[in-house]
Amino acid sequence: MNIPENAMTVHVPLRWSDMDAYGHVNNVQFLRLLEDARIYAFENWFGRERGVLGEGLLVARHEIEYRQPLVYRQEPIPISMWISKLGGASYDIGYVVHNGEGTEYAIAESTMVAYDFERETARRISESDKESLKQFIAPPAPFRHRSVAK
Amino acid sequence: MNIPENAMTVHVPLRWSDMDAYGHVNNVQFLRLLEDARIYAFENWFGRERGVLGEGLLVARHEIEYRQPLVYRQEPIPISMWISKLGGASYDIGYVVHNGEGTEYAIAESTMVAYDFERETARRISESDKESLKQFIAPPAPFRHRSVAK
Amino acid sequence: MNIPENAMTVHVPLRWSDMDAYGHVNNVQFLRLLEDARIYAFENWFGRERGVLGEGLLVARHEIEYRQPLVYRQEPIPISMWISKLGGASYDIGYVVHNGEGTEYAIAESTMVAYDFERETARRISESDKESLKQFIAPPAPFRHRSVAK
Amino acid sequence: MNIPENAMTVHVPLRWSDMDAYGHVNNVQFLRLLEDARIYAFENWFGRERGVLGEGLLVARHEIEYRQPLVYRQEPIPISMWISKLGGASYDIGYVVHNGEGTEYAIAESTMVAYDFERETARRISESDKESLKQFIAPPAPFRHRSVAK
Repeated sequence: MNIPENAMTVHVPLRWSDMDAYGHVNNVQFLRLLEDARIYAFENWFGRERGVLGEGLLVARHEIEYRQPLVYRQEPIPISMWISKLGGASYDIGYVVHNGEGTEYAIAESTMVAYDFERETARRISESDKESLKQFIAPPAPFRHRSVAK
Repeated sequence: MNIPENAMTVHVPLRWSDMDAYGHVNNVQFLRLLEDARIYAFENWFGRERGVLGEGLLVARHEIEYRQPLVYRQEPIPISMWISKLGGASYDIGYVVHNGEGTEYAIAESTMVAYDFERETARRISESDKESLKQFIAPPAPFRHRSVAK
Repeated sequence: MNIPENAMTVHVPLRWSDMDAYGHVNNVQFLRLLEDARIYAFENWFGRERGVLGEGLLVARHEIEYRQPLVYRQEPIPISMWISKLGGASYDIGYVVHNGEGTEYAIAESTMVAYDFERETARRISESDKESLKQFIAPPAPFRHRSVAK
Repeated sequence: MNIPENAMTVHVPLRWSDMDAYGHVNNVQFLRLLEDARIYAFENWFGRERGVLGEGLLVARHEIEYRQPLVYRQEPIPISMWISKLGGASYDIGYVVHNGEGTEYAIAESTMVAYDFERETARRISESDKESLKQFIAPPAPFRHRSVAK
């Protein structure tokens, strides 16, 4: 299994409409599942009162590898998440979408940038947010492809 | 500009609903735009008679970097596409989503795998398809992140 | 309250992306919520083994009135459903999308047609399905508009 | 044909992802197509400078009947639209989604309410907007069901 021990696992509901004409959850919809996974995780990491729209976070980058086709099911799907890089104004989230029993459907990584919407500029991550994120720090997403900063 | 000279440019219509509560085209919807861009390009590359559902292609991987926010507009948006790697059973597509006047909204790359749905196994790309793809071969997508195979 | 006593209430998860650029759950997405509500209800009404794709049901008609704007929330939203008409080969489902505390966001009604996909023709609803549906029979959806068959 | 002579026809692009696991354009996505049809028509009816987000229009109601299954195609789909009722603060739009050659996929009607977002109340439709809308007045949508105000 590719899931770090200190990852946080959230359970994201599928929709029947996530399936495309091939009868599988569409590759783009996996990113949609990750969006809701972040919302569930942010509540835990930063506290609900921070607000979904007011987070001051931009998505700067996504990378995703598909491993197995996923078919709609009524039970929410486990997504395990961790911090794969923590910088001063940005951090990376690693994800594994899986079934809780060893089957992995997708591996992904997103780069989030802390943003000050009023000043329209990147901002530093606060110390208290850094403390929250640090407990979830783990290795980079286990892509077959390896992605490195230039 | 990051667009290779031999790239093919298709024009993909936006939908008002591509915008999210921030009033920008949602980051996930960019992948949706790339999906339709592939369909338009495949008609040109492989001929319409090949059929959208029968292509025998799987999406194995996406990587995308966001550069500028994009707001809904009625005019279709230019997406320039090229082949950034051509293997025996798979190829990579590079994309730039732009406005035709130098503003780039996103840079992306997808790995497509030729698949035999009957035998449920990867298949080799036919010689005639390779010939079609070869004229669009150009350098890798110009990510700030550099992605390399292990 | 407009909810019949014998209605069945399911709880449908929202997605952050259900909101549009106005910051409210988009009017079209309400129909998407009803789609998942039917899937949850069908499991209860017909049993899971009947299968989602094999139901042999077509949506022939929707009608929906919007009452109050709905904003994304993490808690699933209650949708109360009942059978507002039961025919030999079709039935109507009435719905109220609400918050469980008296606020109603939308009233809707769908006409479902039992269909034999092999013979490509409408089919009669089985007696056992009729028995299941009968316990949920209640008055038509309480639209301000009144809809009557010609 | 059910299309009034003075209807306005817009051409709305489909997306491959409009199809669901049945391989047809999903019933909910038809409403999504109507949303974009309104945006195209509003430009013609009210002028582009009025702005999509600033229109001050709410969707109060939708009704739709499905006639024939629709499969994805690259050519935009014709949607013919007209004003089926014009009131002081609201109007109804009738639609036929068709193929331009006599096949009708869906018949629909939406009730739009003019709204003053600052005062948070319904507003009267301006005389100039009424003049624009009047040229498209035609009979109610030709539903098999007949819908009447109480």
